[in-house]
Amino acid sequence: MDLQAFYSKKTVLITGGLGFIGSSIARRLVEMDAAVRLVDSLIPTYGGNPYNIAGIEDRVHVNFSDVRDIHSMAYLVQNQDILFNMAGTLSHIDSMTDPFTDLEINCLGQLKILEACRLNNPGIKVIFAGTRSQYGRARYLPVDENHPMQPTDVNGINNIAGESYHLLYSKYHGIRAASVRLTNTYGPRHQMRHSRQGFLNWFVRLAIDDEEIPIYGQGDQRRDFTYIDDVVEALLLVGASAKSVGQVYNLGSGQPVSVRRTAEKAIAAAGRGRIRTVDFPADKKNIEVGDYYADFSKIQKALDWRSTVTLDEGLARTVAYYAECREHYW
Amino acid sequence: MDLQAFYSKKTVLITGGLGFIGSSIARRLVEMDAAVRLVDSLIPTYGGNPYNIAGIEDRVHVNFSDVRDIHSMAYLVQNQDILFNMAGTLSHIDSMTDPFTDLEINCLGQLKILEACRLNNPGIKVIFAGTRSQYGRARYLPVDENHPMQPTDVNGINNIAGESYHLLYSKYHGIRAASVRLTNTYGPRHQMRHSRQGFLNWFVRLAIDDEEIPIYGQGDQRRDFTYIDDVVEALLLVGASAKSVGQVYNLGSGQPVSVRRTAEKAIAAAGRGRIRTVDFPADKKNIEVGDYYADFSKIQKALDWRSTVTLDEGLARTVAYYAECREHYW
Repeated sequence: MDLQAFYSKKTVLITGGLGFIGSSIARRLVEMDAAVRLVDSLIPTYGGNPYNIAGIEDRVHVNFSDVRDIHSMAYLVQNQDILFNMAGTLSHIDSMTDPFTDLEINCLGQLKILEACRLNNPGIKVIFAGTRSQYGRARYLPVDENHPMQPTDVNGINNIAGESYHLLYSKYHGIRAASVRLTNTYGPRHQMRHSRQGFLNWFVRLAIDDEEIPIYGQGDQRRDFTYIDDVVEALLLVGASAKSVGQVYNLGSGQPVSVRRTAEKAIAAAGRGRIRTVDFPADKKNIEVGDYYADFSKIQKALDWRSTVTLDEGLARTVAYYAECREHYW
Repeated sequence: MDLQAFYSKKTVLITGGLGFIGSSIARRLVEMDAAVRLVDSLIPTYGGNPYNIAGIEDRVHVNFSDVRDIHSMAYLVQNQDILFNMAGTLSHIDSMTDPFTDLEINCLGQLKILEACRLNNPGIKVIFAGTRSQYGRARYLPVDENHPMQPTDVNGINNIAGESYHLLYSKYHGIRAASVRLTNTYGPRHQMRHSRQGFLNWFVRLAIDDEEIPIYGQGDQRRDFTYIDDVVEALLLVGASAKSVGQVYNLGSGQPVSVRRTAEKAIAAAGRGRIRTVDFPADKKNIEVGDYYADFSKIQKALDWRSTVTLDEGLARTVAYYAECREHYW
């Protein structure tokens, strides 16, 4: 698919636009000459960081507001061709200690965005960022899109609702929506201040700082990682494709790696750091899902997507990025 | 199971306690000498009706508050052995026109109840009222508990979240929760003022009033009906059983009947009324799910439950009830 031809001159709104994935989409879109508007509330401890758009700040419009603010959303969605709906909380642990905030952002906020679209721009295309945590513990591997969804945390439950609203509005209200279920996205521009939104970037930070990387138990549970550039490519393909409407797509690498081996790779990429084996903390053990890796053949067949950046290469690029602009993330 | 022995002297809280199902549970519990507290907010157009507890008003404690009021819930759940959590909106149509209220009551309200329990009475047993609308359109019949859940309305999505919170809190926070997925419950004490919460009682009203019962299209889609007394029995069994913890159970009759035949039966029971065939209204056609009937063998095997009241007998009892106290419902 010729993404350049599709996105040139398109108007594109990105919620969570200063976050890891949102800002990375924005950077690609600006290159392709799209008119890009970012919405972000910069809630502390979430992923938003103004530095994520360093170098493109004059080529995007940034609007500071919260997706739960239906009035600003009602205005912002107008005259937009495509919405990359990347706003949302990601922390499994936080959702268990503060389930209400998770519900407000991942259920109520999503419903407000969709109502804003239905009432003000029903022809818009919306791409939702789903997550592997919707599946819960894998009953079979690799996990395809028809796998039962039995989340092990409130965040997973709320993301199912958020995705379901999108598919429902797509089916009954004419909005053209699709969902991409992400799994352990890593790379430059991920927040680096805490470990609650994905462990691989956190491993990279610990390694760069020459600290111990704690591995719970054996660390032999295997996971699937997708480098940010591959994720952005997938989201752009889904955004541009007419046949994606109403569809859900898994992403994955096809190369599951154990948590321990991942830490070793982060250490190798940084040239520093070391592993320390510790007992599983109770709060994490409860919601630990064991092995997980995705069957991504659906998006491969439909949109000719596959991940292209290996874990070693992705980690090398990640280390290089933070070596250069560490002060904006640490 | 000896329900009398189990419930005697138990403390039981019922949300939606003045509603159709809540008040019917209360009536059985009072007979069995349980200490019953009802919570209801009496939101207009919902199912609550003070007349539903006529004759037992001195044997229950009624607390007027909303399940979204976490402070009153935090107090009310204390020292309760069992919570029948029957509060919730049921209208498929309303959830599409006002999705936020549906979300507030069926997601946020449920989460508040569960947090109230976790923080104030984590040992409580909670029985959630699930619904067939969680499944959406049947992919196979009869629908068992493992059937995929792809709701055709916001109400179904929010009920999935509400049920999922219960199962999650049961698994990780020690609360003992179970869900019973209801399907077209009918009988005495259902609200009779509008048709948006189940069509069979509405048919009964139209027949009693000697009016036309509108049947959309052929009316040949088949449905499953459960008489209120059978539903109450199932809920009480689930509440009393230790093995129900973390489980989900379908209810059903095993006797699917077409919508048209149901109207004919309502007319026969009332001795009045007539059918008028009309085109499917657009808002209803969108969310119409076609044939639905449930596989209830799980609760049959586990708790020896089955429905005992036939549709003809249930309709006769329903007509007799409203003939006697019509002025409190019309």
